[in-house]
Amino acid sequence: MSLLVLLDYAAVLVFALTGALVASRAQLDIVGFAFLAGLTGLGGGTLRDTLLNRTPIWIADQTYLAVVTGAAVLVFFTAHLLESRMRAILWLDALALGGAVAAGAGVAQGLGQPVGVVLVMGIATGCAGGLARDVVANELPLVLKQGELYVTCALAGSLAGVLATRAGASPALSAGLVALVTIGLRAGSLTLGWRLPVYRPRPPRQ
Amino acid sequence: MSLLVLLDYAAVLVFALTGALVASRAQLDIVGFAFLAGLTGLGGGTLRDTLLNRTPIWIADQTYLAVVTGAAVLVFFTAHLLESRMRAILWLDALALGGAVAAGAGVAQGLGQPVGVVLVMGIATGCAGGLARDVVANELPLVLKQGELYVTCALAGSLAGVLATRAGASPALSAGLVALVTIGLRAGSLTLGWRLPVYRPRPPRQ
Amino acid sequence: MSLLVLLDYAAVLVFALTGALVASRAQLDIVGFAFLAGLTGLGGGTLRDTLLNRTPIWIADQTYLAVVTGAAVLVFFTAHLLESRMRAILWLDALALGGAVAAGAGVAQGLGQPVGVVLVMGIATGCAGGLARDVVANELPLVLKQGELYVTCALAGSLAGVLATRAGASPALSAGLVALVTIGLRAGSLTLGWRLPVYRPRPPRQ
Repeated sequence: MSLLVLLDYAAVLVFALTGALVASRAQLDIVGFAFLAGLTGLGGGTLRDTLLNRTPIWIADQTYLAVVTGAAVLVFFTAHLLESRMRAILWLDALALGGAVAAGAGVAQGLGQPVGVVLVMGIATGCAGGLARDVVANELPLVLKQGELYVTCALAGSLAGVLATRAGASPALSAGLVALVTIGLRAGSLTLGWRLPVYRPRPPRQ
Repeated sequence: MSLLVLLDYAAVLVFALTGALVASRAQLDIVGFAFLAGLTGLGGGTLRDTLLNRTPIWIADQTYLAVVTGAAVLVFFTAHLLESRMRAILWLDALALGGAVAAGAGVAQGLGQPVGVVLVMGIATGCAGGLARDVVANELPLVLKQGELYVTCALAGSLAGVLATRAGASPALSAGLVALVTIGLRAGSLTLGWRLPVYRPRPPRQ
Repeated sequence: MSLLVLLDYAAVLVFALTGALVASRAQLDIVGFAFLAGLTGLGGGTLRDTLLNRTPIWIADQTYLAVVTGAAVLVFFTAHLLESRMRAILWLDALALGGAVAAGAGVAQGLGQPVGVVLVMGIATGCAGGLARDVVANELPLVLKQGELYVTCALAGSLAGVLATRAGASPALSAGLVALVTIGLRAGSLTLGWRLPVYRPRPPRQ
């Protein structure tokens, strides 16, 4: 199994765990856990594949459905062991983001897409699942949380992958680098408060 | 007209009625009624067709557009006759869910998709229209309502269809069974409080 | 460059400005500006192209990505010069709506789609970007604002285009007419209070 495929499975699994944890905060039943786990785990890849006119990953390979279902069952029976579900969601989401951005950018590079499209596919694949999770469950989207790096991590990771490929790196090395840069930036933002200057001249009036 | 096509039209019509009723709660004009009716009635089938790389039903056959528009006009002029619009939305949604799940699972089975994909297509086709309606209109999504069966009904219905087909049932018989099981479970949940155990160890903190 | 393509670029640019302005109200960083600018500017066209099974505009032509990024940068550094960002969002959104409806209806007409599909594509292309912007940023969707014409403008504009084409108008003339009718109606609604009767018999109970 190539590193790219492995990162894709890992991202689906870990995003599914975050979806199930959000379901536990909403006190849903086990099918609700599986629903949010599937939406979160498979949302990004499905968007990527639809945009690139490919068959969605989970239609081509049913293993993905087993993975998200397994993640839902696991969380349903173990979430109470966590000290803080919110912290677990944040950190698992950071890991999953790295894998998903790598898978998204890697697939687009493999298809020979130009740089701009590779960057957007990295961002879209990385962010869509978590965004769908948060919108449906009516939580504040992580993507738009003020004063934290999120989309920026996906953008920087994808860019690192493009540059590495240009410098002659193999697809596997590039994908690993994308994941590392994305996760590293996100971790720095969560622990050390790394951020970009936000637009602050005036808060909205209404 | 086959039973499958009939169930599809019925689901589109009845989901469109629920969309228009939500529009009446939001006090929109008649075009707003048609917009929400179309989004709700056609959302699930459009998602299914996009994922399966088929032309969306309403592009292939414009009758669907006439159906949702008619539903919007009907509700605009008669919604005040209902004693409780919320009850009407709940029950019409249950009926539409049954038809849409049958249509989604049936189409996937007709394409020879494997079991997992059939189940997901039943769920996605059944739930997407109502979910889009509730997210856009900012109502609490029925899909995620605590202590009620919803996605579970779609899953059980789709599963019944798969088993019936394996046992030799015709597509029409399977589709009818899917609708019956889905609607029956949802009705039992609405009237008798049928439910699965929900995750309850701890409510969320924040 | 044909008028249709020009209207498409203009709509993407101006919708992107509204997305960036919403980002400034949410006090995001510059990558957040670009994210909301891209979602708003490209959302409608991407939906249209996915439904019509075409390659999304920004994959076929990367200029679009440069346009939305440029809009985000421009707004990040100049939004504080505006007296009212909310007014700017409303009016830019009206202009973008006109261009996007023209582009959506025009593409569908160019593909020889029947009338119903042309109208829906005009509405979907015009409304999807702004709707995604408002749902993700948790603002009240303009599409559903009570007592204002919005979807109605898109419908009337698309209809004008269909009638003009039937009367022998060139694609460019039709597209111009679509934009004019859409923007004119929306402007009349914003300044003179033009509206359709809303459903008012009873407000919702819950």
